[in-house]
Amino acid sequence: MNIHELIPALREDNGSKIVLLVADGLGGLPLESGGKTELETARTPNLDRCATEGVCGLSIPVLPGITPGSGPGHLGLFGYDPLQHRIGRGILEALGINFHVGPKDVAIRGNFCTVDAAGKIIDRRAGRPTTERCIEMVKKLRQIRIAGVEVFVEPVREHRFVVVFRGDGLGDQVNDTDPQATGVPQLPAEGKDSPSQLTARIANEFIKQAGELLRNEAPTNYATLRGFARYPKIATFQEVYGLKAAALAIYPMYKGLARLVGMNILDAGNNLDEQVATLKKVWADYDFFFIHFKYTDSTGEDGNFPGKVEMIERLDAVVPRIVELKPDVFIVTGDHSTPSKLRSHSWHPVPVLLHASSVRTDGVTKFGEGPCLHGGLGQFQAMYLMPLAMAHAGRLGKYGA
Amino acid sequence: MNIHELIPALREDNGSKIVLLVADGLGGLPLESGGKTELETARTPNLDRCATEGVCGLSIPVLPGITPGSGPGHLGLFGYDPLQHRIGRGILEALGINFHVGPKDVAIRGNFCTVDAAGKIIDRRAGRPTTERCIEMVKKLRQIRIAGVEVFVEPVREHRFVVVFRGDGLGDQVNDTDPQATGVPQLPAEGKDSPSQLTARIANEFIKQAGELLRNEAPTNYATLRGFARYPKIATFQEVYGLKAAALAIYPMYKGLARLVGMNILDAGNNLDEQVATLKKVWADYDFFFIHFKYTDSTGEDGNFPGKVEMIERLDAVVPRIVELKPDVFIVTGDHSTPSKLRSHSWHPVPVLLHASSVRTDGVTKFGEGPCLHGGLGQFQAMYLMPLAMAHAGRLGKYGA
Repeated sequence: MNIHELIPALREDNGSKIVLLVADGLGGLPLESGGKTELETARTPNLDRCATEGVCGLSIPVLPGITPGSGPGHLGLFGYDPLQHRIGRGILEALGINFHVGPKDVAIRGNFCTVDAAGKIIDRRAGRPTTERCIEMVKKLRQIRIAGVEVFVEPVREHRFVVVFRGDGLGDQVNDTDPQATGVPQLPAEGKDSPSQLTARIANEFIKQAGELLRNEAPTNYATLRGFARYPKIATFQEVYGLKAAALAIYPMYKGLARLVGMNILDAGNNLDEQVATLKKVWADYDFFFIHFKYTDSTGEDGNFPGKVEMIERLDAVVPRIVELKPDVFIVTGDHSTPSKLRSHSWHPVPVLLHASSVRTDGVTKFGEGPCLHGGLGQFQAMYLMPLAMAHAGRLGKYGA
Repeated sequence: MNIHELIPALREDNGSKIVLLVADGLGGLPLESGGKTELETARTPNLDRCATEGVCGLSIPVLPGITPGSGPGHLGLFGYDPLQHRIGRGILEALGINFHVGPKDVAIRGNFCTVDAAGKIIDRRAGRPTTERCIEMVKKLRQIRIAGVEVFVEPVREHRFVVVFRGDGLGDQVNDTDPQATGVPQLPAEGKDSPSQLTARIANEFIKQAGELLRNEAPTNYATLRGFARYPKIATFQEVYGLKAAALAIYPMYKGLARLVGMNILDAGNNLDEQVATLKKVWADYDFFFIHFKYTDSTGEDGNFPGKVEMIERLDAVVPRIVELKPDVFIVTGDHSTPSKLRSHSWHPVPVLLHASSVRTDGVTKFGEGPCLHGGLGQFQAMYLMPLAMAHAGRLGKYGA
């Protein structure tokens, strides 16, 4: 029995409230050996006060050395073992454009490509068309009709789009039709089992009709399909924790991930101020609030150390407005590290701050990677954050007599 | 899915180089409560500089409280869960004498013993004969011929020798024939399944012929067989990590363990100087280098605290010659602790130093058990060291999108 199975048997509803503030890619690195990270450099008086009153630690998103994408990073924070619960590429792509995937859906990543007269692929990305061209081509593909399923086609950007087949009994054990090479024709879709063979037949029909519709549209004169993925079977937040949860995110991907675990997706505006205003407005209506802040990640990915510092200070500035709502548990952390030094997600453990009246304080007085290393939560796998949140909120009963 | 299954899907070859320097039994204990360990006592300016620039921690070889032998200790360091990948005693014994075991082999530990006229064992170790006598008796046993298998017999020392049966379809679920008692005859070999029944028939034939060959050689007038073990099915270093790996070890056991995971075994000379000279010579030819240093363990087992300190200082002295090769990741650790105070392997966590440009520095400026306790790697299971090495070498891609 894992902790995720244990919690539903132990949970108690005491009306307490939990806020999980996720600064995407929060963890960082010093630019020079022995120097300060972005978080350590930032002036964060409000977070520091919470760290002083609360308990700190470092979370390992998946396992030591493993760098997570946004999907596994957030599933871990939501308490789902990211190695057990996998979200297929097609589903993530659909979530990223705010497509509402459902339990009867198979979602697929599409690529416009260029083929020669013999049907051989000469450019797997069709010369990276503009997003306008992508939208135009997707409109053509929306003419595709296949008996027995609903077909949705949505643009992403450049050569990329999303296809969703909605119907009964569709499997997702289907190969990519993109041969990952040029000078060869695209591969036929084949299913590994009977439900997937049904999906493969539909996919091949989609590709055939796409070829006809795009025939005169070179360089975007054909399309390949990759990352076939069914909507994952996943217990909801309500089922696992008994929490009525609201997501206050701006970017579609994070709304989609929250929707996947059954959170209510609120219209949270377009910036942190508006997210916090929304939080205040709906405070009475939910037990759990997930607030997502993107810009600590995007500045990190840009290699913009001072920019990330500034974003952290901007985050710090809204903390008093959250604290004054008196959440029983207030957590600040990230889904992974995105050190500006590396310009990418990384495997480094992520600072965690947990503020609650039931914490064992630990002497940490500054929120930063160095101090968190000596925090009371130690280093722990991210999937244990939710049990810790539930416990500190008084929402978990005793295991065994 | 465990991390060992995950890594092949994430690995990327970027041409970076990793050096794993294993000081066998590195971890120690203070002789007096509150005192310094061997490593803390040693003057190690070079390791300390690496610790300052790198990140430190403590590794738990198997699980808390579990003292590993060399086999599980090294498998853990190589990233293989030592509870999942077990190496039978017969195989370890064969590796220890540099016998090249292969996939068709069953390896067995043999004991010369003394039997009375009725065939009852009166001394399970034949009065601990000299090793010369052991070699002489093994020569006799090499006359044994059994249809369908090749039979190898190799001396170890005193009453101990190794038998290897090489053939198709041999199992290793065979009981020890040593009854672990005197006054009783040796037990017949019996197999639990059909392949093991084949091995048991061969073993019984071996014992019968051994009895005839040794009839007049009392006290070494019979032999028992123990620890039947097939060559373990284990994914190679190349398969798991995509690393071309070289082992620079001196003792057969460590060469054997490295060969087991598919490393190339180099002729590395007879001491640390020659090992490092070999490292320099073959630097361009491999991605990963395992250097094994035995004497931190043997001095520990001898209860020789100052001797172990001296060996650590000798290790420190070669560190600059490794660092000047500019490995992307340089790790110094042990396969387990061997405190001179205990004169044996122990379960205590083992100091780890990881030097790379992508580390999050942690304020540790001295390599030792005490400082490592506050290091950024925290305390972690040894099997996560390789994922951490791969990550810091830039050789692991993102998990999930």
